[in-house]
Formats: sequence, C-alpha cells, structure tokens
Amino acid sequence: MYDDDRIRQRCRWPQWHDRLRSAEQAAALIEDGMTVGMSGFTRAGEAKAVPLALAERAARDPLSITLMTGASLGNDLDRLLTEANVLARRMPFQVDTTLRRAINDGRVMFMDQHLSETVELLRNHQLADLDVAVVEACAITEDGGIVPTTSVGNSASYALLADRVIVELNLAAPAELEGMHDIFVPAMRPTRPPIPVVAPDSRIGTTAIPVDPSRIAAIVVTEGQDSPSTVLPPDADTARIAEHLIGFFADEVEAGRLTPSLLPLQAGIGSMANAVMCGLAEGPFEHLTMYSEVLQDSTFDLLDAGKLDFASGCSITLSEACGERVWPRLAEYRDRLVLRPQELSNHPGIVRRLGVIAVNTALEADIYGNVNSTHVNGSKMMNGIGGSGDFARNAQLSVFVTKSVAKGGDLSSFVPFASHVDHTEHDVDILVSEHGLADLRGLAPRERAEVIIERCADPRYRPALRDYFARACARGGHTPHCLESALSWHVAAQRDGHMRSLIEQVEPRSA
Amino acid sequence: MYDDDRIRQRCRWPQWHDRLRSAEQAAALIEDGMTVGMSGFTRAGEAKAVPLALAERAARDPLSITLMTGASLGNDLDRLLTEANVLARRMPFQVDTTLRRAINDGRVMFMDQHLSETVELLRNHQLADLDVAVVEACAITEDGGIVPTTSVGNSASYALLADRVIVELNLAAPAELEGMHDIFVPAMRPTRPPIPVVAPDSRIGTTAIPVDPSRIAAIVVTEGQDSPSTVLPPDADTARIAEHLIGFFADEVEAGRLTPSLLPLQAGIGSMANAVMCGLAEGPFEHLTMYSEVLQDSTFDLLDAGKLDFASGCSITLSEACGERVWPRLAEYRDRLVLRPQELSNHPGIVRRLGVIAVNTALEADIYGNVNSTHVNGSKMMNGIGGSGDFARNAQLSVFVTKSVAKGGDLSSFVPFASHVDHTEHDVDILVSEHGLADLRGLAPRERAEVIIERCADPRYRPALRDYFARACARGGHTPHCLESALSWHVAAQRDGHMRSLIEQVEPRSA
Repeated sequence: MYDDDRIRQRCRWPQWHDRLRSAEQAAALIEDGMTVGMSGFTRAGEAKAVPLALAERAARDPLSITLMTGASLGNDLDRLLTEANVLARRMPFQVDTTLRRAINDGRVMFMDQHLSETVELLRNHQLADLDVAVVEACAITEDGGIVPTTSVGNSASYALLADRVIVELNLAAPAELEGMHDIFVPAMRPTRPPIPVVAPDSRIGTTAIPVDPSRIAAIVVTEGQDSPSTVLPPDADTARIAEHLIGFFADEVEAGRLTPSLLPLQAGIGSMANAVMCGLAEGPFEHLTMYSEVLQDSTFDLLDAGKLDFASGCSITLSEACGERVWPRLAEYRDRLVLRPQELSNHPGIVRRLGVIAVNTALEADIYGNVNSTHVNGSKMMNGIGGSGDFARNAQLSVFVTKSVAKGGDLSSFVPFASHVDHTEHDVDILVSEHGLADLRGLAPRERAEVIIERCADPRYRPALRDYFARACARGGHTPHCLESALSWHVAAQRDGHMRSLIEQVEPRSA
Repeated sequence: MYDDDRIRQRCRWPQWHDRLRSAEQAAALIEDGMTVGMSGFTRAGEAKAVPLALAERAARDPLSITLMTGASLGNDLDRLLTEANVLARRMPFQVDTTLRRAINDGRVMFMDQHLSETVELLRNHQLADLDVAVVEACAITEDGGIVPTTSVGNSASYALLADRVIVELNLAAPAELEGMHDIFVPAMRPTRPPIPVVAPDSRIGTTAIPVDPSRIAAIVVTEGQDSPSTVLPPDADTARIAEHLIGFFADEVEAGRLTPSLLPLQAGIGSMANAVMCGLAEGPFEHLTMYSEVLQDSTFDLLDAGKLDFASGCSITLSEACGERVWPRLAEYRDRLVLRPQELSNHPGIVRRLGVIAVNTALEADIYGNVNSTHVNGSKMMNGIGGSGDFARNAQLSVFVTKSVAKGGDLSSFVPFASHVDHTEHDVDILVSEHGLADLRGLAPRERAEVIIERCADPRYRPALRDYFARACARGGHTPHCLESALSWHVAAQRDGHMRSLIEQVEPRSA
C-alpha cells in the first residue's frame, strides 16, 4: 500500500519490514480484557488506525478493554470506541459527547486523574499493568527509537512499560517534528534524583522514546491528520476577562511583584484561557515564556508577535486556520519549542520550582473561591480535571477564569456552594469574570466572599449571593453556610433549567 | 536576672550584651498594625516570653497585629493573644479553643494555608511584608546565627525576611538540639535550582539560621518549656485502624508493590495517625524511614524499637511521658533525626520525589472519597488543613484514617456529600476506619462508593448511605448525587445534634 522508499525516509530502523502490519492485524494483538495505553493528547498525536480497526472489529467480535491515553483523542475515536462498546474503563481525560454520556450513565468507568499522575501510578503497579501500547510516530530512529508526533502525552512511559508496542508511523506528520521532543522518564522512587528541568527551555532527555525494538510488535503505516482544535476566537466577554487579567499583571509589575517577562505561563485548554493568552500580545510584556500543557493558537500568535521567547508543552493543538499557517513553517519554530511527557510538563515539583502563572477555566466557583472544573450540578462529568490541579496547586499565581453566567444568564457561575470541588480555596489566588477580577491573596473566607460577589458575579445574581452570605454570616463560622439552602441554586437549575428564580426571590426585598 | 556565664554558654556571638532586653522591652518593638512572624510549630519551639508580654501590654495599650507562625502555639499563647484582642489576622494554622471561637465568630481573620506555602507567598510579597520576627533559639553562634529549638517551622524565612529580629534565647532548651537542624531556604523563582533533598537523611543546609546579626534587635533570655502534646494513647478503634492499614502494607509487600522498608512515612498530627505509626512497631517491616512534618511519640517508639532508621521533620512534639524519656537522651538520637523548615519537610516536589506514604486524619469523607479535614458542618473551622494537602496530593500512597462515627455514634464520619472539601477524590487512595480499609486506587466514583460504604462506614449508617447512593445512581452521573438531600445529614446534625434519624428512616424499608 505504501511505497517502501517513503517508509524508509521515516523509518531508519533496518528491521522494519518484518514488523509491517495492517491496522487490522495490529489490532488483533489487543484482546478482550486487556489494558491498553495509547498516544494522544487533546486531539494531537493520537494513534489513528489501530483504534479505528479495533472499533470495527468489535462490531463483529465484541471485546472490551481499559484504555489509557494522554488526554482526549481526535478523529471521533472516543465516540467510535464507545459506540462499539470497546471501553470498559477509560482514563485519565476525555472530551467526547458520546463517551461522556456513557460515563454519566455508568456504562464506562472513568478515572478522572491529575494528568501528571497516571504514569506514576502505572509505574508503581497501582493501576493494571499495560498489555499493549499504541503510539503514533513521525519517525523511527536507527536503533528503533520512537519519535512521537504532535503530542508526547504519556506515550514514552506507555511504550516503555507495555508488554508489546504497536507503532503507527504517520507519513503525513511533519518530519520537522523530529528534534522537538525531550523524552525523559523519572527514576523509580524512593531513590529518584531531582528532575533537572530548571527553565522552560531545559532539555534533559532524548528526542526519541528509547524502546528496545524487540518489543515493537507491529508497525502500521498511516497518513491520518490530527483533528483541528475547536477553540473559539475571543468574544466580548473573554476579551474583557483578558483585559482584567492583563491589567492585573501590569499592576503586579508596577508593584515589583512581577517583572515585564512575568513568569512562565500556563494556560488551560479551551477558548477562555486561549483568549487570555491572545490578550498578552497587546500588553506591555516582553520575553515571555510558557511552561504549559497544550500549546494552542495563542502560543504561536505570541511567538509570531515576538512576545514569547520559548514555549514548553506536551502537545500542540491548533485550529484549522492556525495549523495552515504553522505546520508548513514548523522548522522556523524549532528552537523555541519543546514537547515533553505530560508527567514533566505538569510536574508539581517543576511547576513549583519555576513559579508558574497558571490560568485555568472554572465551570463554577463558590463565594469562597472553591472551584468546580468538572461536574455539572455536582453529578455529570464534563471532561475531567486535566492538568488544572497539577498547575493550580503549585503555581506562584493560580488564576481561574469563567464567564459570570452560562446559557444566556440562566445559570450563574458564582454560587453559594460549589456542587463539586476540584480546587479548594487554598489553591485559588485570583478569580476573573467579564465583570472584574477578585484578588484573593491573603484574604480569609469572609473577605473572599465579598470580593468575589462584588467583582466577579453577574450583577443580577449579586443580591441573592449577598443575601445568602448575610444569612450565613449571621449563623457564624469561618466559612459561613446555610446548609439547607446551600445547594438550592443547583436544585433550581435541575428543576427549572435555570437559576432565574434566585434573582426574583431577592429583588423585591433589596428594592 | 540571668547569670552572664549561663548566657555565654548558649550565646557565642560576642556582641550579645548590647542587645539584651526584657520581654516587655522587646515586645515594645511590635506596634499596632504590624505583621509579625513567630516561631512555633504544633506546640514546639514557639517564642514564649515576647507574645506573653505583648498580650499583657495589650490589656493596657490595645494593639492588633497580623500573626504568622509555623503552626500551632503552646503555652496557651493563642488563647492569651485572642483574649487580649491582639490578633486581627492569623495564619497558617491553630488549635486553640478560644482562638477557634473568635475565628468562627468572624472576629479574627484566619488564613488556612498549606503549610509549605506561607513563606513562598511572603517571599513573593503576596502577603504583607514582615515587620518583626520573634524566634526561639537554643543557641546563637559565633557570627550571630540563630539555632532553633524543637521546631524549625517557618522561623528561618521569618528571620531572614523581617525588618527586625527578636531572639528568645531559651536556656532550658536542650543544648543537644544544636546540630539537628538543617536550614535551607530555596532560591527565588523562576531561576531556582532543584532543592537537593534526595532522601530523608539528606543534609543540604546549615545548622543555624544565617542572619546578619545587625538585624537582631533584641535578645530575650527565657527558660520556658514547650507544652506537652495532647496525643491520646491508641484505643480499641485506633488500634483496629492501625491493624487494617498494617495488613494492607503487608499485602502490598507481598504483591511486590512495596518493600519491607515501605517508603518514607508521613503521619499527620494527632492520636489517630500516631496510633497507626505505633502499630508499625509490631509489623514485619524493617529499616523504615520518615519524611514527615511533626515527629511525635511514635517516631521515638519506632526508633527505640529499632524499626526506624531515620526521621526527618520540622518539629518534635511529645507527650509528657515520652518527653521525660527522650529529652534527657536526645544526644543518642542525633544521628537519626533532622529538623527542616516546614517549606522543605512538606515540599510538594520532595514528597513526590521520595514517594512518601502519607497518613492523615479525615474529619469526614463522602461516599466518593472527598475528604473534609477542617470544617464541622461545612462552616466551623476546627484547626486548619495543615500539611495534609502538601502530603496527600504528592504522596505515592495517600491514606486517610477516621473513626466511622463521632460522638458515640451520633454522627457518621461517612456522609453522602462532604460539607467541605479539602482533599478531592483524586488525592485519596486509601480510606480506613475501624471497620475496614477501602482501596480506591484505579476505581471510578461509583465503584469507590460501594467500597467506602461497605468497608468503612458504620454498619448502622450503611443502609442510609446505600439508599442515597441507589437513588443518586438512578438519576445518573459520573458522581451521582441527589442535590436536594445531599447535605441533609448535616442539616439533621445541626438541627438535632445527631444524625440518628438517618438510621431510623431507612431501617424499616431495608428490614
């Protein structure tokens, strides 16, 4: 099917021909009940052919597996695998509508994990051992080393820990990706030396995953493309959020707490954090760096604007338009980018060491600054905690951004009591909505509530939040609550589809 | 008042005589509105004379300050300072009944912090700059270096960052403490090199806090004693908890996931975690190490039993009986102990590097394994999160222990929905009560709930928990909940003083 010369350009390992398999043949190595680790992080660099073949085979020959990835997959693979009932267990992150429904119905057991932790657990045998790893590569080196494509994710540890390795050699992936990766796997504990990343541009490992090629069970040649990101361009609200945050950074520089190059930046995946990063292109900042997870459109905008000196991440996920601009010119960015395993891009110790500024998106926050990133009405999983906990806990400045309302004002993102907590008030320094910025540093919970309500909440919901807070304070407590009505906003949302009754209840009284 | 020769034995810095002050004179350096950092961690090594003089002065001459310490103070100092209305703001931890009441009444603004973070925030000017530091010392070196006593806590950074330093030279503190401390202050970010602690017995710093003696504004000579710990000896329930956990460790060794020396151990402060550690003296484990926060009675029991090779902490807090045994023989332990700044004893990066086994106490846990360590009924602060988050998030194995009920069975420690979340389900691997152990590793929330209810909850409360869980699952969700009744257990506890109505509601139905 593929021209041998084309394969030889990407596969320098001489024995490749013996291992060449079709996707169907390779998928046959995966048996019912197995645990499988696949490449792929936020729609970037996932194995494409083997999971598809697996879904097709399952239609005839049912099987179910535990699937671990880096994060979300593109090309509708999570949907196809879910529809084919292949997924018994899934970790550590996903964004697919069909899979999400199966998770919320209890049909797929989902382990929502801090993204830096999955391979630590695997290495310590605290998760089921991997039978098979399936990793996308843009090249295979002379000695069988696997050169990943647009994401590293957990691929290195999966390939090193699995009994058998399937490599998807993607001839359509830019060859210029080779050299951009920095593969390093920490030593076993308790005798692990310090991981020597000391700056975003530190290179501490190899450019390929050093697998023993005798463990490569199959090489599948593909030409698939990554799915483009679905990031939306900034709108009026996200632009306002960016403006508030950039004003805050400027004030911090003025106060001497930050320099004009700020600190290594992390931005969560998605339109909101991307918009904030875009805003930095206009700000008075220079020689910025990123120590982040996913490198999105904003990374390349800032590189092109000459604002950003260097970016470290574990995947590159671009919109179609940005991809058209970046992929043909990838070589121009090579000295300013590195892709690391997610265990290192998100490593608590490195994030703490570098003093990262973390910008992540909240689904909702309570008046004391506890943040829900994952569960609608405390029950329904959206995507997963992702890397937000790795960064928010250890950052020098932990920022969460959210629009003050959802569904055209039907739901307030600021509530008396978070229906699920992913990030406790200890880990939330700054909250920003389109209305303003709440600087929560050094404040006690009662002080935090006032700032959050008055700066961030939608003005229509403020009277009801003030009313709850006043009633709670009258009862006392370090973090005052009225437990019998603490979740009433969410109960209303479930019952009525909106929280507007909260506005009406209080308005007459405060009028 | 004190014999010069006695002072000279402890104070080798030649210029000491010029700085000698009474506690009252030294306290006069602290003015209304100032921010003050004091030594002291879990009743160990707190400055004793100056805060007492400050409280006495405030009775005549009102003033209020922001007080930061390492953690809790002994000798009733937090009570006396609260009663004298000295405390406007207090961080990062406390255990005093009177102060707790003032916090819950909203009279003292309390910042409950991860104990590793306070000095990072201070160093970055994200908290108000320190005007005065007050640090207890057992000696002052030739060049003015401050040798702490029974805790390091935050003393090093406080002494280095404050405008003026008051040293309380405690002639009654064991002179043999000198040499036990390892003082190291991390460099500023973002250019911080790795902190080179690679094992519990790593020594990376100096034995004294290297202050420029021109910054020592006063030396106050004292002879006060630390308050003994209030740790209770193991009872039947805590002994059962220890037994379950030790059985689990033995199984992990059998399965090859741990060696007989386990991994560096951390135990939270208090009777429960202390009991678990005591239990290890009887287990089949050898050459244990600790990388913990407070070294309690159990540390010395294990050292004496020949089970523990080395212990690293940031303070030593002993019961009266244990202290009588240990303090006179302190020199015998010197090669097996190190006291570090709490920023290092609790450092997320080091805890992750060493792969610590963390054992902390839960106030309550929900059926999905979210843990409340701090707030009674979601509102009233008990003590603070302390170091539990530093350890639980980054440990190789994160264990939380709790008795299944409180108040003689009136309150269930396992509830449908935690009334406050300090540790999310992501950070809780193992839950243990006297009834059993829930191994939550690799489980999805619905699976976690079954194990927690059936293994850990009090059998009398299990029907009501099963009933809630079944009703919630019928509604769906990754983490199923019935929000309108999620907090009803706590509402009952507030209304009735107990949760027994939950037992009665379900019993007829399940009978």
